[in-house]
Amino acid sequence: MRIGRARHDGVVRTFAVTEDGYVLLPLGAPTPDDLVRLPAVRTALDEAIAAGVPVDSDDLEILSPITRFNRDILCTGWNYWDHFEESKGKREGQDPADRPLHPTFFTKGPGTVLGPVDPVPWDPELSEKWDYEVELALVIGTDGRSIPEDRALDHIAGLLVANDVSQRDLQRAHGGQWLKGKSIDGSLPLGPWLTTVDEVDLDAGLELEFSLNGERLQAASTSQMAFSIPRIISELSRGMTLRAGDVILTGTPSGIGNAREPQIFLKDGDVLVSSVSGLGALRNVITRASLTEYVTGGVQ
Amino acid sequence: MRIGRARHDGVVRTFAVTEDGYVLLPLGAPTPDDLVRLPAVRTALDEAIAAGVPVDSDDLEILSPITRFNRDILCTGWNYWDHFEESKGKREGQDPADRPLHPTFFTKGPGTVLGPVDPVPWDPELSEKWDYEVELALVIGTDGRSIPEDRALDHIAGLLVANDVSQRDLQRAHGGQWLKGKSIDGSLPLGPWLTTVDEVDLDAGLELEFSLNGERLQAASTSQMAFSIPRIISELSRGMTLRAGDVILTGTPSGIGNAREPQIFLKDGDVLVSSVSGLGALRNVITRASLTEYVTGGVQ
Repeated sequence: MRIGRARHDGVVRTFAVTEDGYVLLPLGAPTPDDLVRLPAVRTALDEAIAAGVPVDSDDLEILSPITRFNRDILCTGWNYWDHFEESKGKREGQDPADRPLHPTFFTKGPGTVLGPVDPVPWDPELSEKWDYEVELALVIGTDGRSIPEDRALDHIAGLLVANDVSQRDLQRAHGGQWLKGKSIDGSLPLGPWLTTVDEVDLDAGLELEFSLNGERLQAASTSQMAFSIPRIISELSRGMTLRAGDVILTGTPSGIGNAREPQIFLKDGDVLVSSVSGLGALRNVITRASLTEYVTGGVQ
Repeated sequence: MRIGRARHDGVVRTFAVTEDGYVLLPLGAPTPDDLVRLPAVRTALDEAIAAGVPVDSDDLEILSPITRFNRDILCTGWNYWDHFEESKGKREGQDPADRPLHPTFFTKGPGTVLGPVDPVPWDPELSEKWDYEVELALVIGTDGRSIPEDRALDHIAGLLVANDVSQRDLQRAHGGQWLKGKSIDGSLPLGPWLTTVDEVDLDAGLELEFSLNGERLQAASTSQMAFSIPRIISELSRGMTLRAGDVILTGTPSGIGNAREPQIFLKDGDVLVSSVSGLGALRNVITRASLTEYVTGGVQ
């Protein structure tokens, strides 16, 4: 099942992506948020898909499928060794020489989440080093703590594509902890829809790709992960409850802008396409915005 | 205004701490969660306090005042230089020699939050290095982004005491990022109630104290902070929206167990008392529990 959210004729609706194309579900159908929190709505969604009508994707303004968050987005760092190696000597401040024995975990604030075709707000006053990272993301569907590796896949509701946009200077400037350089508003395009885990063959590996203005800069298979998805879920949940709706990013492969010679940093007008085989693609344009001006009260 | 939540005769109620003692507010009175999200309920709370009845604190089982979270708990590291210095050579893995020029930010998951007298679940299979950190915590009351230092205090709804219980081995084992060693379920006693910012003189400094089994192990003034509260709010909110209800911890002073000679780590039965002058005290007992056993579905 592939379900997403989109604005259609000005109204936010649930849609499905089927073998026959896009299907607009009846008003009141469950959303991807409902699905990850209550797997039982799957039956209702099957019925809604059957009752849905074909729709032209041009008539859909696709939005982020997941919108309700109880906590920060959980992220995995250095989960492809070629990415760990490429960054050596380029990690200002803290630069471990040896491969970590355990996964590296950090978070992005939920205010980072964007839809799959939203512009990425970009303010050069905030940072001089805007970078990209294509990643496989997953959403927890069943609460669990200290989940063994062989039960990990049972706790996943679905998969998505993520682009973990990062500010490399901010990531290094705050005592070596990455939070600040990972949590700028609008730095996480996510989508394009939620693909339930039964739709893909994780064991065979999924292909990640990132292109900038049409040039392919990242390409890898999830089979190259340093720590597998079951290992990530098992270590992350040890003593720390994962809850339905929690989003976990699983790391980026080599090819990031900061590690290139010469380095590449994102700029106004850049077109970012991030894809994972079987899950769809995100297309986001870097767009000049003010993030450094004081805003108080109801902030967008 | 000092308001909290407590179970009284089996029912969760709002109470106030006034010059005349504890006051039980009428059923249906706003809670501290309401206050931080809608400052206008302050008037309703004033009326509820006037309509309340005196209550013996022995009849209150005081709970965490803040219960609704949209994101992780935001935390500040190395914010007292004596604590930065005491830990030199004891930070396995990454050990910066120079004082950071910017505050260090990381998060604790919201599943860490405990009430002010709750037992702290302790599982030696999870970690061999359980440590304590008394801190001043604040709650955001008004959304804001890129908040200037001279407006920062306008964005605070209230203050609390926190004990940032940490697992030092887990904190170091995950690629130098602290999340995992800071996010174990039940590792953040918080309270005892919410004190609005007008009740205290932040400029004069508040006194922090932590004692273990009656022995004072941490004592400092918030005036010793490396980065002031306005600086923390300003840097943290730069490009990253802070929302009403977000909790920010402001760092711990020297005296933690990991930096002592000999080292002190928490064990079953230890009594932890954490206090900040004007804000009250937390009293939590370390209590053996299983955190490493697999739990699935509705997890407590």
